[in-house]
Amino acid sequence: MRNIKLTLEYDGTDFCGWQVQPEGRTVQGVLTENLTTLLREPVKIIAAGRTDAGVHARGQVVNFSTGSTISLQGLHRGLNALLPPDVVVRRVQVASSGFHARFDAVRRQYLYRIGVRSTALDRRYVWTVLRPLDLSVMQHAASILLGTHDFTAFCLSPGERKHCLCQVLEVSLKKARGEIHFRITANRFLHSMVRILVGQLVGVGCGRLSEVEFKQLLTGGKPHQPVAVAPPQGLCLMRIIY
Amino acid sequence: MRNIKLTLEYDGTDFCGWQVQPEGRTVQGVLTENLTTLLREPVKIIAAGRTDAGVHARGQVVNFSTGSTISLQGLHRGLNALLPPDVVVRRVQVASSGFHARFDAVRRQYLYRIGVRSTALDRRYVWTVLRPLDLSVMQHAASILLGTHDFTAFCLSPGERKHCLCQVLEVSLKKARGEIHFRITANRFLHSMVRILVGQLVGVGCGRLSEVEFKQLLTGGKPHQPVAVAPPQGLCLMRIIY
Repeated sequence: MRNIKLTLEYDGTDFCGWQVQPEGRTVQGVLTENLTTLLREPVKIIAAGRTDAGVHARGQVVNFSTGSTISLQGLHRGLNALLPPDVVVRRVQVASSGFHARFDAVRRQYLYRIGVRSTALDRRYVWTVLRPLDLSVMQHAASILLGTHDFTAFCLSPGERKHCLCQVLEVSLKKARGEIHFRITANRFLHSMVRILVGQLVGVGCGRLSEVEFKQLLTGGKPHQPVAVAPPQGLCLMRIIY
Repeated sequence: MRNIKLTLEYDGTDFCGWQVQPEGRTVQGVLTENLTTLLREPVKIIAAGRTDAGVHARGQVVNFSTGSTISLQGLHRGLNALLPPDVVVRRVQVASSGFHARFDAVRRQYLYRIGVRSTALDRRYVWTVLRPLDLSVMQHAASILLGTHDFTAFCLSPGERKHCLCQVLEVSLKKARGEIHFRITANRFLHSMVRILVGQLVGVGCGRLSEVEFKQLLTGGKPHQPVAVAPPQGLCLMRIIY
């Protein structure tokens, strides 16, 4: 048996997220089905992280065990030939037998693209915010995220986890290609955490939330208003680091 | 009567090109229909250039005359509210009464994106070429294009025009964002000219065509092989200069 590691890119627009569901097209479902066809054996796929409906990936990592003797190149080409155009295998590697795509991941990196004008060409990949945003205030708020904090206020279902502490290792919010790009690397992410962070940062940028209130949310404070979750299409899982 | 100038962005993927057809969804058709609804009068739209099926635009320019007294902001917002998500008005201006979007254009700028690996997220906007390409040979061939040449060999229907002379004012072929970007500015473009140029430049890059043969095509030579037309999705009309 070999333990195979795949790096995947997908356009989340037409998927109901990563995880297999009884109904609806999912990335895990499409990948499992085509791998089973190619390898002629049942395959159980483990992903580094589940992405929500509409969220994209450039560097999702998965692993699975197989008894097939197919070459890595044959697997790579064969799978890309079978997969629909919105899922692409970028890399195929043999991993050590104990490698686990989810448990062994030490850092995850996301990009969220905020568009500042209406767009046709990027509409599937940005959240368009037409209100004026104060970038420097947003940048300062974003910089507070660095380090270990309790992200309870930035999790859609905090009760599911033992604790909500996450260590943010890198964070930036910058103008790029006429958009605002929010990049964040952390040891773990909670449910919808990046999208809630972006929703609240945009709140800071348009004056709905003060920087002091934003900071309070990081020290166990509860949001006064319903949580603002940025829409999924702006989000992309960029990289998993092992 | 005011003469209105619009700058448009559109995703050509789901359009049968710019020009109205008896059947099939076209950008001109969708724009005319929604402008007529908004202004409550028939509207005749003139575009700087027709784009083919599947070709995109970030800076298409059109003009039309209207007796409507709607404000420019009302026109901008109203039209973007009515238009489908794959067409967006970027700018609305009042032009001089004699302004003609096509005849007054002095330069047109196109970008063609060549992808060098399989991609899910950019599949609607790049031509993926998996054969190895010699970038420096392609760059040298592209540099020959600068100046005025007879582009008969790079036109799908040369008989339709009086002559095929075009003046290329800027040209570049560069690595950008892990892709190869071909940018070209000229006073005019012939039918499918950019796509044939890219098809032949890729021919040079993979050794199918020598640089000498490419140069001969620019001096009235006829292609020995069937003309290689790069697919539409990599092409984007970037800017019209008046």
